[in-house]
Amino acid sequence: MKGYVFHGPGQSAWEEVPDPAVKEPTDAVVRVDAVTICGTDLHILKGDVPEVRPGTVLGHEAVGEIVEVGSDVRTVRPGDRVLVSCISACGRCRYCRDSAYGQCLGGGGWILGHLIDGTQAEYVRVPFADLSVHALPGAVDSKDAVLLADIFPTSYEVGVLNGRVRPGDTVAVVGAGPIGLAAIATARLFSPERIVAVDLAASRLEAAKRLGADAVADAAEDPAQLIADLTDGLGADVVVEAVGVPESFELCTRMVRPGGHVANIGVHGKPATLHLEDLWIKNITITTGLVDTYSTPTLLRMTAAGRLPTTQLVTHTFPLDRMEEAYDVFARAADTGALKVVLGEPSHDEIAVPAA
Amino acid sequence: MKGYVFHGPGQSAWEEVPDPAVKEPTDAVVRVDAVTICGTDLHILKGDVPEVRPGTVLGHEAVGEIVEVGSDVRTVRPGDRVLVSCISACGRCRYCRDSAYGQCLGGGGWILGHLIDGTQAEYVRVPFADLSVHALPGAVDSKDAVLLADIFPTSYEVGVLNGRVRPGDTVAVVGAGPIGLAAIATARLFSPERIVAVDLAASRLEAAKRLGADAVADAAEDPAQLIADLTDGLGADVVVEAVGVPESFELCTRMVRPGGHVANIGVHGKPATLHLEDLWIKNITITTGLVDTYSTPTLLRMTAAGRLPTTQLVTHTFPLDRMEEAYDVFARAADTGALKVVLGEPSHDEIAVPAA
Repeated sequence: MKGYVFHGPGQSAWEEVPDPAVKEPTDAVVRVDAVTICGTDLHILKGDVPEVRPGTVLGHEAVGEIVEVGSDVRTVRPGDRVLVSCISACGRCRYCRDSAYGQCLGGGGWILGHLIDGTQAEYVRVPFADLSVHALPGAVDSKDAVLLADIFPTSYEVGVLNGRVRPGDTVAVVGAGPIGLAAIATARLFSPERIVAVDLAASRLEAAKRLGADAVADAAEDPAQLIADLTDGLGADVVVEAVGVPESFELCTRMVRPGGHVANIGVHGKPATLHLEDLWIKNITITTGLVDTYSTPTLLRMTAAGRLPTTQLVTHTFPLDRMEEAYDVFARAADTGALKVVLGEPSHDEIAVPAA
Repeated sequence: MKGYVFHGPGQSAWEEVPDPAVKEPTDAVVRVDAVTICGTDLHILKGDVPEVRPGTVLGHEAVGEIVEVGSDVRTVRPGDRVLVSCISACGRCRYCRDSAYGQCLGGGGWILGHLIDGTQAEYVRVPFADLSVHALPGAVDSKDAVLLADIFPTSYEVGVLNGRVRPGDTVAVVGAGPIGLAAIATARLFSPERIVAVDLAASRLEAAKRLGADAVADAAEDPAQLIADLTDGLGADVVVEAVGVPESFELCTRMVRPGGHVANIGVHGKPATLHLEDLWIKNITITTGLVDTYSTPTLLRMTAAGRLPTTQLVTHTFPLDRMEEAYDVFARAADTGALKVVLGEPSHDEIAVPAA
């Protein structure tokens, strides 16, 4: 089969790789019908995630059809259409028993496209299939569903739920890329008084408005002052960090009110400065997190009911074999306006393929 | 009357000051029968708390007798024996209505010995008396009660409750000064599996054992490794920072397990480095806080029932007019073994006064 293989920083290709097969009785093999590219994949390509070994097939998000299952798999069978979650879960360890699947100690967690071959391929082996794939309702389009493999549960759990957004809150979302936009969309579920999106790119701030931001702020123009002006000088109740650089995190800690929450979603490669000389007295809560995906079943039901604006995040679609082009369009988002790019296998799925 | 006056960094004296009087209808004037010195007072003397103006009487903890009340005071009257809380509360602002009295926007919060004259004097004016003093049960000794003006609610709320200590947890307390010791004592109320105290001073680690630590670690000897060894390599469920320097905070973030909590109590004068490149993926929660004192009534009931080891923290007592000597003994804790020093007015109270 073909897959998108990481060969070390700056080197990758869509190329022939061995077909995956069931290795453990809890495995499933899934034929990939839709897949997307994550900002984390770009980090891997830059060499920021050193534990990814050269030779690994990338990707941790997919929709597809089960083609083979191991003898211990109980909840899905060949022919089932499933969402492949970015988080695999052994289901038996201390963390899995606490629904903290992202921290699985039994060999799961974020492993696809990280520690083992991932989903940017024609087929993928998924360990612990019973807890790592979700059967898909027929009503959910693959293009929408694939956004529930990672970005929607990440933004919802790590941003909105960890940040404890409540009705009436002022919520600031710093970074209006796909993760920030999904945070805006899911923060709305809690009826905040206002959501303020902060970014450097005007096009992303426009997208933020479409996804439900009530106000937007150019990150270069003192957004902390805007938030102060909107909140009697207090600051935001909840600030979501969706960038992953020290400057952005530090901005978040300046925007939060006494007693408020800073929910970090960003993937960071460097330390930040925590201004405890100001913050010790402010009763703030800072949370970090890899997604656990405990919310995925809920988000799937909401998507089936048309309650999540997943479609609005998909700006580009490609056939699977144009993976390299899709990466290029996604990596040059500032020029291409890309939010999420979705690749599909036209013979299996309804994903519209643009003219070459 | 006499009071202990801050005259700028490094300058202070027990000296004649004007008698306080009721200025607002919500004020009370309290005759001070017992008072203590806080680590924060030492910070002020060093010049670390620049908003304290020269000429301010220091101190934010006291037990005494109401001698005068304004016309709007309803819950106490002259003759009542009261605890003067470190936090004053207007009771009407957004934060007070949310029990976040420490962040009071109506002129309260931590004001005594900070923004207005404090308790290290023969008398003190207490604003918003209805919500800022607590009537004392006769069964509670002043020497014990005065520890409930600040350190016990601080350690309990900002350390134990913010850190969400639960039965079966491994709790690490970094810093075994009075605040850390009170955190150990109140963490025990939640039946953790073990409490590990970390400090550089052997005498403080001995005190930690007396207050309920199950294990102790020399801060100079890789305490993070000890915690890892005790927890299958995972780290502590809850880490309480009770020092207030960057190195200590950074140690705490290395000791916490994925999904765990770091509760900062320390008063910090400098920023710390937050290693988000390691922590973004670990689902940790960091909290900071000034005490709100919402727990003070509960802690008073527990003290009356003999359930808190307040007495064990008081190592030195002095008559009120030996304030300067008491400061010296407290500031040189490493030599004197001082934990909390309590000063009393012998003619009013039962505090034993050592021979001169």
